[in-house]
Amino acid sequence: MIKVTILGNGNLATHLTRVFLKKKKIDLVQVYSRNLEKIEYLSKKVSITNELLTLKDADIYIIAISDNSISEFSSQLNLKDKLVVHTSGSIPMNVLKGNFSQGVFYPLQTFTKGKKIKFKSIPICIEATNKKHLNLLEKLAREISYDVRPITSDEREKLHIAAVFVNNFVNHMYHIANNICHENTLPFDILFPLIKETARKIESISPINAQTGPAKRNDSKTIEKHLDQLNSDQKEIYKTITNSITNSFTTT
Amino acid sequence: MIKVTILGNGNLATHLTRVFLKKKKIDLVQVYSRNLEKIEYLSKKVSITNELLTLKDADIYIIAISDNSISEFSSQLNLKDKLVVHTSGSIPMNVLKGNFSQGVFYPLQTFTKGKKIKFKSIPICIEATNKKHLNLLEKLAREISYDVRPITSDEREKLHIAAVFVNNFVNHMYHIANNICHENTLPFDILFPLIKETARKIESISPINAQTGPAKRNDSKTIEKHLDQLNSDQKEIYKTITNSITNSFTTT
Repeated sequence: MIKVTILGNGNLATHLTRVFLKKKKIDLVQVYSRNLEKIEYLSKKVSITNELLTLKDADIYIIAISDNSISEFSSQLNLKDKLVVHTSGSIPMNVLKGNFSQGVFYPLQTFTKGKKIKFKSIPICIEATNKKHLNLLEKLAREISYDVRPITSDEREKLHIAAVFVNNFVNHMYHIANNICHENTLPFDILFPLIKETARKIESISPINAQTGPAKRNDSKTIEKHLDQLNSDQKEIYKTITNSITNSFTTT
Repeated sequence: MIKVTILGNGNLATHLTRVFLKKKKIDLVQVYSRNLEKIEYLSKKVSITNELLTLKDADIYIIAISDNSISEFSSQLNLKDKLVVHTSGSIPMNVLKGNFSQGVFYPLQTFTKGKKIKFKSIPICIEATNKKHLNLLEKLAREISYDVRPITSDEREKLHIAAVFVNNFVNHMYHIANNICHENTLPFDILFPLIKETARKIESISPINAQTGPAKRNDSKTIEKHLDQLNSDQKEIYKTITNSITNSFTTT
């Protein structure tokens, strides 16, 4: 049994709590939240607390709070020689400050409140300061996912930038398309099959080989016609990405 | 039985040929290609030809060639009073020139050579100059898909712009992320679950509500850190989309 404590009540903390409670080899010892009311609903299943200084004994303490608060929060912990990890993609392991051993347990996925997710296929990026703790994190991660990878803080930072492109920026493309549909009283859902196939396609061909469309073809007539129909914000994006697509085909 | 002839040998023509041959209520009368060798492999299953002026009798002639060639190609047809349709998202129905009746049969999907696709869920946008032909196109479309929608040329143009955002531009985000991974010897496939979930998510929440990340949070520290690590082309895209995301949250 791996004894785990979760510190936090947000999206990821909630998802982790749910999946840990289901696993026989994981003993969820305690869940901490500054605001106890937010985790009151868990009280029948697990010990809950809002007292940082009297946390129960566990093998791994998982901080799942907003990135900017992690460092300061960790400095309040009194968990001498214990393993304390954060769950963030964007910040290095060494922001954790205290007399404990540092680590990272980063599930590379987007989590939505109320939307269940299958952990099995989520890559979990782990990092620790020593082999023993890395093994312990790997053991925990393997209980919930079959894709566990040791990733350094430097690598994780690059991965996080790549994730901004494929998640935040891609989602913004969906948002613009949604607006275009809305402005023309067209149903956005007509694009869902295309959206899904675009995401699936790159699992079998590289994105550069999957590219099609007016930018790739250098079809200036169509590009001009499209630009004429966009607002200034959309136009700016259309131009910038179109140029970049064109560059990617002239420089390779 | 609906008698259909396909004119073209490209990606879409190939996919349509394959699915039509499977349907009992569709009689694929003939496939035309200027270059007969390219469709030689079909000769045991269907009549093939490279002679435009001696096409067999059919109910619907489907032009599936590159957008820029459609108009000129159609003017070579001698199909008086027959229904001739093109399959393009980006050009209006009336580019078709001849003594035939015009129509459009546009499957809103990205097709890849050699990659099989399920037609059942692909939206098929149809258009015709009269009710009788619209019904005929609907009947044909319903044989291969359960999502058939009458869409005007004006609407189709807007849809096509939206499709450029969710397909071409999204794919380019994948390309940049792939480059970032490659440059840092990180495996691109670690992002696949995130990519798929990002595409799935908007089926249950609108993109604006699904948005997360440094741009949404206005987290200038992280944004600056990311910009420092990108090349000039990537930086330009990062800045433009980040600004647009920020705008989408301040103006709504």
